[in-house]
Amino acid sequence: MTELINVNSRSYRLPSAPTIVVCVDGCEQEYINQAIQAGKAPFLAELPAFGSVLTGDCVVPSFTNPNNLSIVCGAPPSVHGICGNFFFDQEAKEEVLMNDAKYLRAPTILAEMARAGQRVAVVTAKDKLRSLLGHQLKGICFSAEKADEVNLGEHGIEDIVARVGMPVPPVYSAELSEFVFAAGLSLLTHERPDLMYLSTTDYVQHKYAPGTPEANAFYAMMDGYFKRYHDEGAVVAITADHGMNAKTDAIGRPNIVFLQDLLDARYGAQFARVILPITDPYVVHHGALGSYATIYLHDTERRRDVTDFLAGIAGVEAVFTRSQASQRFEVPEDRIGDLVVLGERLTVLGSAADKHDLSGLTVPLRSHGGVSEQKVPLIFNRKVVDVDSARRLRNFDVIDIALNHLG
Amino acid sequence: MTELINVNSRSYRLPSAPTIVVCVDGCEQEYINQAIQAGKAPFLAELPAFGSVLTGDCVVPSFTNPNNLSIVCGAPPSVHGICGNFFFDQEAKEEVLMNDAKYLRAPTILAEMARAGQRVAVVTAKDKLRSLLGHQLKGICFSAEKADEVNLGEHGIEDIVARVGMPVPPVYSAELSEFVFAAGLSLLTHERPDLMYLSTTDYVQHKYAPGTPEANAFYAMMDGYFKRYHDEGAVVAITADHGMNAKTDAIGRPNIVFLQDLLDARYGAQFARVILPITDPYVVHHGALGSYATIYLHDTERRRDVTDFLAGIAGVEAVFTRSQASQRFEVPEDRIGDLVVLGERLTVLGSAADKHDLSGLTVPLRSHGGVSEQKVPLIFNRKVVDVDSARRLRNFDVIDIALNHLG
Repeated sequence: MTELINVNSRSYRLPSAPTIVVCVDGCEQEYINQAIQAGKAPFLAELPAFGSVLTGDCVVPSFTNPNNLSIVCGAPPSVHGICGNFFFDQEAKEEVLMNDAKYLRAPTILAEMARAGQRVAVVTAKDKLRSLLGHQLKGICFSAEKADEVNLGEHGIEDIVARVGMPVPPVYSAELSEFVFAAGLSLLTHERPDLMYLSTTDYVQHKYAPGTPEANAFYAMMDGYFKRYHDEGAVVAITADHGMNAKTDAIGRPNIVFLQDLLDARYGAQFARVILPITDPYVVHHGALGSYATIYLHDTERRRDVTDFLAGIAGVEAVFTRSQASQRFEVPEDRIGDLVVLGERLTVLGSAADKHDLSGLTVPLRSHGGVSEQKVPLIFNRKVVDVDSARRLRNFDVIDIALNHLG
Repeated sequence: MTELINVNSRSYRLPSAPTIVVCVDGCEQEYINQAIQAGKAPFLAELPAFGSVLTGDCVVPSFTNPNNLSIVCGAPPSVHGICGNFFFDQEAKEEVLMNDAKYLRAPTILAEMARAGQRVAVVTAKDKLRSLLGHQLKGICFSAEKADEVNLGEHGIEDIVARVGMPVPPVYSAELSEFVFAAGLSLLTHERPDLMYLSTTDYVQHKYAPGTPEANAFYAMMDGYFKRYHDEGAVVAITADHGMNAKTDAIGRPNIVFLQDLLDARYGAQFARVILPITDPYVVHHGALGSYATIYLHDTERRRDVTDFLAGIAGVEAVFTRSQASQRFEVPEDRIGDLVVLGERLTVLGSAADKHDLSGLTVPLRSHGGVSEQKVPLIFNRKVVDVDSARRLRNFDVIDIALNHLG
């Protein structure tokens, strides 16, 4: 009989081979397609012969934290509670960073696998995700960003910088993600974890379009590691937290709708509070500008009027009430505002113009957050079997497929 | 007093300098942005210092003919009648190619300018557009495709191949568009038309993504001609007929919804007729696959049921009734079906699988047709003045702005 564990109402087989789940941050499918076209991703180009390439929908808001947590919980934010980097705590009346594990409402598959006796390892690019992904995990868990602080007691491993043989990279670099893959290879060949979760940063995707030399070089790097994992006998499962789109006009100027300014001008200051859940301590490469915003209203009686006003603004794709948004996107009602606003594919939503520091945008803005960045790859180095072709696949099905549905 | 002409209820000043209106087929804004980033479009990079860069909405269906005709008429298809390459003639009960000028219901600004005594020239890449664009035009009008057949009687010019100094390029080539620009330069420096309309082909954009070497080379070529026109003292106004998006998954396989097959399976053969108005005699590079379809129903009583069925299919973005579509997209009711269906950004709509020859798709499918390809550039080498910033700009405002609103 196959041993199963149950997490968040789904069951998972224990890994039959070392299983590596990779979340490629900001991996619009076109990055892979163009890298293959340019001859820079030979492993992924050959993969369909022995593996499977599918497409899935990520969670909206199409941001990093909600999706990484959905992937490791196998469930949407309505279950695990993490629906952005920031939310407005209505009791405390303040905007709160949701990086702390105390906001997590569900166990992760990673922690439950470790509890079931499996060796589990997690490597993230940025440290911001480590405490959430490593919540209650007995195993290895560290970030590339703080790899030089790794110690056995806290991270379950030591001397990782020396083992990887790369200096700790700057937080805004392609190398930060490369360090994740190099560390993953070292773990695979030495500790040989049963389940390993690798999560990169979208620094490259925020700066470079699919098919450009810098993007192709980044995907070539990843392709090389995927091949090495494959050659080591691992199951490799690749998905993304979200896609990525240009948010600019023909000469690279960002298309920004400053919602707070527009609402203040129409309804007066203090009437509405615009929250941009993309905001986090690392905003240099996107200026806290994404295609998703949530709005708390001082007077909810006027919600209908505000909805109509916002829906009429050029660049706004859709406006949902709290209950509409929580149903459609499976996000927790108590952590979103009275309204949820989505920007069109080429448009980002800002709060007030003077609150955004765009000085770090040295290249034309590329970002995410909306439904326009919802399509992501689901790639496996073995054939997927027994998955209903009519099923709407999600990125948070990646562990289910990797453990339960590979031939 | 400024002399004005009136065409389709809009008035236009006569050109004060040679005015060149360029329709860059399939010019997703990102092509220009990436070419500038790569240093391949120095003229467009410098243009904002002395000119204006705006964004406009093209006509949906975001196809070549409806948009070229909208641009030269300064009006949407509800006025001029051309809403696709193909339509279903309900009286004749047959699918009809709409390339013939007899389907045109409105005069063009080009013809009216010529009637007002202005020298007018039109150069198109493919010959298919020539008879529509040149309708009742007393002036120069020819295609690069058939440049070797040009004669004074029919085209208002002769010996153009010798003058251009390029051999007539193949119809599927970047050079076909280059010929248009080279011919335009020859006309500008010799005949010096008051108003010239240049229309390219999207062969390059169907094949190559923004920022790739082939796309950048194409935009570098155009950039060079724009600079030469500018240096010759011309007013240069650049727009596009539609944008362009990848329509594939991570490994370049097309995402296709075969509507005819789905409808036949559910409602029986002969119940619905799917028309793909992108279909034309040149389908090699897109396989007649775009993100727009219109459907004629045998039994319109079941329209509501069919709408719900289609709207539930993954990859379908929206379904409109004839009257909804004709209002929203300003297309003529008598030339669209009972329903209009749009594909999502990454999805194209097909009829029956066995009706599409995809053997010409040697690279991953890129195409257009939906609202996802509606944003196009509006670029002028002089400052735009007196245009209300709240006005929704359309690509078919390009001649209005070029003649009436430049400083």
